Amino acid sequence: MAPSATGEPAPMHLPAASKASTITASVLHGPRDLRLERRTIEDPSIGELQIAVHTTGICGSDVSYYKKFANGDLCACMPLSLGHESSGTVVAIGPQVTGFNIGDRVALEVGVPCGQCGICRQGRYNLCKRMRFRSSAKSVPHYQGTLQERINHPAAWCHKLPDNISFDTAALLEPLSVAIHAVNRAKPTPGSTALVIGAGAVGLLTAAMARQSGCSTVTIADVDQGRVDFAIAKGFATHGYVVDRTASSPSSLYSPSSSGTSTPLDGVMTPASTLSVSSQFDYAKSLAADMLSLTSSSSPPPFLDDDEDDGVDVTFECTGKEVCMHTSLYATRPGGKVIMVGMGTPVQTLPMSVAHLREIDILGIFRYANTYATGIRLLCAREKLVAAGPGAGYVLPCLDDMVTHRFKGLENAHRAFELASRTVDPEGNLVLKVVIEA
Amino acid sequence: MAPSATGEPAPMHLPAASKASTITASVLHGPRDLRLERRTIEDPSIGELQIAVHTTGICGSDVSYYKKFANGDLCACMPLSLGHESSGTVVAIGPQVTGFNIGDRVALEVGVPCGQCGICRQGRYNLCKRMRFRSSAKSVPHYQGTLQERINHPAAWCHKLPDNISFDTAALLEPLSVAIHAVNRAKPTPGSTALVIGAGAVGLLTAAMARQSGCSTVTIADVDQGRVDFAIAKGFATHGYVVDRTASSPSSLYSPSSSGTSTPLDGVMTPASTLSVSSQFDYAKSLAADMLSLTSSSSPPPFLDDDEDDGVDVTFECTGKEVCMHTSLYATRPGGKVIMVGMGTPVQTLPMSVAHLREIDILGIFRYANTYATGIRLLCAREKLVAAGPGAGYVLPCLDDMVTHRFKGLENAHRAFELASRTVDPEGNLVLKVVIEA
Amino acid sequence: MAPSATGEPAPMHLPAASKASTITASVLHGPRDLRLERRTIEDPSIGELQIAVHTTGICGSDVSYYKKFANGDLCACMPLSLGHESSGTVVAIGPQVTGFNIGDRVALEVGVPCGQCGICRQGRYNLCKRMRFRSSAKSVPHYQGTLQERINHPAAWCHKLPDNISFDTAALLEPLSVAIHAVNRAKPTPGSTALVIGAGAVGLLTAAMARQSGCSTVTIADVDQGRVDFAIAKGFATHGYVVDRTASSPSSLYSPSSSGTSTPLDGVMTPASTLSVSSQFDYAKSLAADMLSLTSSSSPPPFLDDDEDDGVDVTFECTGKEVCMHTSLYATRPGGKVIMVGMGTPVQTLPMSVAHLREIDILGIFRYANTYATGIRLLCAREKLVAAGPGAGYVLPCLDDMVTHRFKGLENAHRAFELASRTVDPEGNLVLKVVIEA
Amino acid sequence: MAPSATGEPAPMHLPAASKASTITASVLHGPRDLRLERRTIEDPSIGELQIAVHTTGICGSDVSYYKKFANGDLCACMPLSLGHESSGTVVAIGPQVTGFNIGDRVALEVGVPCGQCGICRQGRYNLCKRMRFRSSAKSVPHYQGTLQERINHPAAWCHKLPDNISFDTAALLEPLSVAIHAVNRAKPTPGSTALVIGAGAVGLLTAAMARQSGCSTVTIADVDQGRVDFAIAKGFATHGYVVDRTASSPSSLYSPSSSGTSTPLDGVMTPASTLSVSSQFDYAKSLAADMLSLTSSSSPPPFLDDDEDDGVDVTFECTGKEVCMHTSLYATRPGGKVIMVGMGTPVQTLPMSVAHLREIDILGIFRYANTYATGIRLLCAREKLVAAGPGAGYVLPCLDDMVTHRFKGLENAHRAFELASRTVDPEGNLVLKVVIEA
Repeated sequence: MAPSATGEPAPMHLPAASKASTITASVLHGPRDLRLERRTIEDPSIGELQIAVHTTGICGSDVSYYKKFANGDLCACMPLSLGHESSGTVVAIGPQVTGFNIGDRVALEVGVPCGQCGICRQGRYNLCKRMRFRSSAKSVPHYQGTLQERINHPAAWCHKLPDNISFDTAALLEPLSVAIHAVNRAKPTPGSTALVIGAGAVGLLTAAMARQSGCSTVTIADVDQGRVDFAIAKGFATHGYVVDRTASSPSSLYSPSSSGTSTPLDGVMTPASTLSVSSQFDYAKSLAADMLSLTSSSSPPPFLDDDEDDGVDVTFECTGKEVCMHTSLYATRPGGKVIMVGMGTPVQTLPMSVAHLREIDILGIFRYANTYATGIRLLCAREKLVAAGPGAGYVLPCLDDMVTHRFKGLENAHRAFELASRTVDPEGNLVLKVVIEA
Repeated sequence: MAPSATGEPAPMHLPAASKASTITASVLHGPRDLRLERRTIEDPSIGELQIAVHTTGICGSDVSYYKKFANGDLCACMPLSLGHESSGTVVAIGPQVTGFNIGDRVALEVGVPCGQCGICRQGRYNLCKRMRFRSSAKSVPHYQGTLQERINHPAAWCHKLPDNISFDTAALLEPLSVAIHAVNRAKPTPGSTALVIGAGAVGLLTAAMARQSGCSTVTIADVDQGRVDFAIAKGFATHGYVVDRTASSPSSLYSPSSSGTSTPLDGVMTPASTLSVSSQFDYAKSLAADMLSLTSSSSPPPFLDDDEDDGVDVTFECTGKEVCMHTSLYATRPGGKVIMVGMGTPVQTLPMSVAHLREIDILGIFRYANTYATGIRLLCAREKLVAAGPGAGYVLPCLDDMVTHRFKGLENAHRAFELASRTVDPEGNLVLKVVIEA
Repeated sequence: MAPSATGEPAPMHLPAASKASTITASVLHGPRDLRLERRTIEDPSIGELQIAVHTTGICGSDVSYYKKFANGDLCACMPLSLGHESSGTVVAIGPQVTGFNIGDRVALEVGVPCGQCGICRQGRYNLCKRMRFRSSAKSVPHYQGTLQERINHPAAWCHKLPDNISFDTAALLEPLSVAIHAVNRAKPTPGSTALVIGAGAVGLLTAAMARQSGCSTVTIADVDQGRVDFAIAKGFATHGYVVDRTASSPSSLYSPSSSGTSTPLDGVMTPASTLSVSSQFDYAKSLAADMLSLTSSSSPPPFLDDDEDDGVDVTFECTGKEVCMHTSLYATRPGGKVIMVGMGTPVQTLPMSVAHLREIDILGIFRYANTYATGIRLLCAREKLVAAGPGAGYVLPCLDDMVTHRFKGLENAHRAFELASRTVDPEGNLVLKVVIEA
Repeated sequence: MAPSATGEPAPMHLPAASKASTITASVLHGPRDLRLERRTIEDPSIGELQIAVHTTGICGSDVSYYKKFANGDLCACMPLSLGHESSGTVVAIGPQVTGFNIGDRVALEVGVPCGQCGICRQGRYNLCKRMRFRSSAKSVPHYQGTLQERINHPAAWCHKLPDNISFDTAALLEPLSVAIHAVNRAKPTPGSTALVIGAGAVGLLTAAMARQSGCSTVTIADVDQGRVDFAIAKGFATHGYVVDRTASSPSSLYSPSSSGTSTPLDGVMTPASTLSVSSQFDYAKSLAADMLSLTSSSSPPPFLDDDEDDGVDVTFECTGKEVCMHTSLYATRPGGKVIMVGMGTPVQTLPMSVAHLREIDILGIFRYANTYATGIRLLCAREKLVAAGPGAGYVLPCLDDMVTHRFKGLENAHRAFELASRTVDPEGNLVLKVVIEA
């Protein structure tokens, strides 16, 4: 990331005389106990920028903290500002930072790894044990999220934005990064076929990235008709499949909440546990066959390669639900890949022999590494092609379309979180991504 | 390739009583000595189909044989039918073939490997030493090309076509296969940047495949303004660069003949040999910088990653000219790749330290393997997206647009070859791909 | 597979007048119902060799068929000769076979794929749906195993042996192929660390191949002290770990039967199901930590890379037991790989978040592809180094040492199977690999 | 690299009151103008260690600077201490460094990248444009080499040594890193065959690493009989080939100087330029065939895979000479790889069609990344296996054996450099690696 702090520690440098100022922050103190507070912020230190946060998207993990003051196993143990899908403007520049000017628009990469351990040096910094990630309760003291008026952030993790990328789209670079990382791990070859299970924000973006990366057909599946329709209408996927939850299914497909990958949708699911494991597998198998028949009847004709019936090349599982992992395994061809994208059920009972005997690789993804520059490049190129007019050919959809709801002012954060935990708003409109503008 | 001969040799099988019939064939007997002849064709043997050839595209290697009765080092030593970019219809079915019906439309994969050696079994059958390739003089007796009324071809190497793929496009699956193989070797990650040098048929298709495979910007360069304009207008590339051949260049860029990758364009080039090696390198370096500045000023903004100036992620060299290899090496970023696509100068003087010190991988491609099913899948998916209307998002252009000239009847083959050796026709129109319909 | 049948189908070829002769075969008709029978064998057909089988090793799947007339889900539905780890001598040569002479010693690759489908052409022929595999009940009629006096086998799947490879070692090329394939999928980089769970024949060979492929430390774990001792004494692994089955473990580690990967050792295991899932995980976690502490205290010093404590780079799970998969996941470092080698529990309850959050790839292997030539090359090179005297440096151990028991005559097959289902013989000696000489 | 400086810049940290002391340094002021000087050294700064340098090996690039005050294109523009293959002891610890104690023995990784640019974050930090490398004239002011009594070096780039690794071996970790990186790029699969051209220090280590990484046969070639004999006797390679320089060759093989990869051996070579290009190619072709016949007659028998004759899987070119690149291309099988290890002739005339038509990948390597921990792990494991006694199985040879000459005291540096530029010492003994102990 070019315009950044110099890598050299400058031992002899005398720090600039530090001045503090006061900002407003949205701070969570317990379940649903979200408070608007005044905080003191120092001037940016060596290597830091001060960013006026413009837009923050709400992710499923934010909603989880909001409701339970915890996310999965991680419990907050002190007040925590939420938000990590963020864009803003440079308002102050710390010592030894080069390449930035006041007023520069930036996207924030909010996970800061140590940069020096073996895994950082090998380029997989998302797996760094010393990673600090904003709005997560993992590191103590917690690294505070972006629902604050201003924050100081290492310049090396601020990514300058071209003019044709909006603040909304820039905030969406965070979930797009997950999608890019998923596709980088899947390494589809041109003409691969893909299945994406779950049409929440991450599922949609993963489908779009699968298309962008050369997959010839990308089927997206969800229990929510509205999301599937959106995916097709906006070009995120080439085929859509709506899972019938009224059918005699052992459990409906998980429909992740508007913004993310991890919050269960209460009251929707028939508990899978009431069915035997083999019934669950039978259900998943027939669901997989159904999804495949959709594609094979519509797109690759029966007179093609005999391998077509055997499944897709890559399945991206974006719900984290066990039944969706079952379906993923049955829907993937021998030698193919299942990418675990959606965080979810930590312990799963799986038909492992299906993967084993058919050499289906099971690859998990945890956040992302080296994706922001890629995302900016792709989005910037897309905008130029759109500007060039019809016929220019592009597949990445407009990410701004994903922002279905917007709240202005940190004082409205609680309303944003409440809405973000639903899949439709009171007017019956689709809730995909809720953003808060500071 | 599903509907094919059964893999089992059937030792006890008594061959069907063989009947012969008579066909017309276009046969080359020496330089420009193309004759229309009558040949006898047997009924298809075990595992074979008889195909009525519908369309054959003319490739640069065909033109070379036509002019010199040789292609590079390979000299024909007996009469040779040309043509290997072909599509047709099944008219007879040999014993033990399953999955085909009379009337099926097919694309022909005309290289038949042994299928049993180590490299075949590892999936790189294009490198099989016992490969027989139609219209090439390499194996003796020569494996005859497709400019014949009918041919018998192993069913395992006939690829059934969906209805929405035309015979023209199906013939173009052959050069498209080269492009797919080039991209499979390059393995671009999403958001990669690409440069394609040479805008002949293979260059155009390679550019299109680079876009299809997730490259955010694809610049195509050629000396021919018409080709570059075509590439941009039809969406094969995102950026075009016309090399100025009137400039004080040591040599102009090679403009391959209409149909392929290997015929030099006589009279266009200033002999590079009249310049010193270091002048040639200086020229290539400035040419590379010029191509990069075009892209970096228009697409990835200067405020992005500092690595942008250093070159593209992948350069596809599609001309086979030495000066273009020089340019490729200078135009590629550290850690990037140069893919040698265009056959050309067998001995080249190269600034190898540029590749060595910057770890730029130099990868050659020879024909293709495992590409036809991919190509059909991609083209079929494209047609469905086109049918779905605007907004569906696709990047692969319409390959039919590449067929600029068409001749009907094998008796017109010599006219086709003469035209295929030019880049503009007598009316001044672009010559890209000339096809002959039997 | 150099000296083989020509790839060309020869449609007009009149089959040699076929003569039949009579052989003895060991044939299984039901559980433990093994009969010695006379069978008729034709002369080898086009592309075939007739092989006098010399040595056949007994695999766990053979033992399973012997006991239950079934292997996992696969039930035999007609008489079945067992045996697929085999070597022998060419006694007759079919038409169109080149490169072989009577008397040539060969190893048999007993799985014959179709060679023409998409996955065969891509080089992953082990996943071919039309694969016929000797001694397996999968294809009907069953493809008969090698416990016969002579068999006809496609020359393309017979591998000539150098003089310095014994018939025993040649028979072991089959399980070695599994090990080679496992390592090919794991792709360890030089200096990787490996853990192998299960010290049966496949586990031992996998450990040896991990060493051979550059792993700096290879720890092998088993419940059987004798096997672990053998592994260390013979140089199959660098470190050994004996799982204490008397400890308060929820279930002991699976100890596969002498010959293979899939037969449970009756009466050894405390049923895991009597413990809660979380107790099982706790046990696996502590077992993993214990195995790692062994290695880290002995080999990579604590003052090395901080990533060392986090686990090994690759775990090869060679037992197929659920608790071993748990241990594998906990014992592998972030970004590492778990290779599922041992067939076993088809449905498993796993702590998937451990793999997901740490991006541990789970890769299954099914048999092997393109391994025999590799195995022969490795074993041949090993023998030459041994012959060159001490100091020449080699890591692959002597495979002949693995043959602990030998039976002569097909009439003794039942005794061989009975012994092969045990881990120690009546005299208390280790049972690793039982072979039958025809 | 675990015990290192914390990644956090500590903006408010007041630097420790800095104290300076005086050291002796060997400093080059011009060609052969090596002076012993007194320099002032500050206390280690934030994140730094002060290291008392114990051993420094002399590399070919050091010799080049010594003779010409330049290395290739790089000219020194100010006084320069040489030396970058180094080990030593921690004598002082800077602020914010954790994990180190006074007295710790370390190997120095002397290239310090920026750590923040795109290519650093992707794990290929050797390609960082802002890399500073000790003893190189590339960055200005030059980053001084290790031929000094003490130096301050970032703790993050100091690698702690286990007790069983000697200072000599630790200094050799630098060229071993080149070899590890070469093998990491080549990615040999188990049982691959390798050819190493050039038996200088880097060639020897590359051969050893190829063996360590699973290559079944590793042939090393050089013009120097003594080096080839050494390689075989010490187990660096399995086969040796001595190029006959008295033969009617167009040019002898390059014999790199004792320590490295880049200094031409004056007076040995018949100028290649006096021969036609095609004669040179013919010579290289016959040389390659000769090298292959050696291996194929001795190791992989003719009755193996027919692909054997076609060349090795990987050739490591360690001389940098053009004729050796020719030989490399002819000696490598279709689908294989040529790894350019030795820096040498920057402009080369190559038979590129040989690589192109056979898809031989040409990959350069520049220094190394992520290799030190690997090297230490491998060497440490080797020592433990040696200690375990015969039969334990290891292939990595003893690196101490490579140190043929040792000078004590920086005042003897000029004698060391003079010797390091020869391949035999005055007594006729082999000169492989000359080290200087401070």
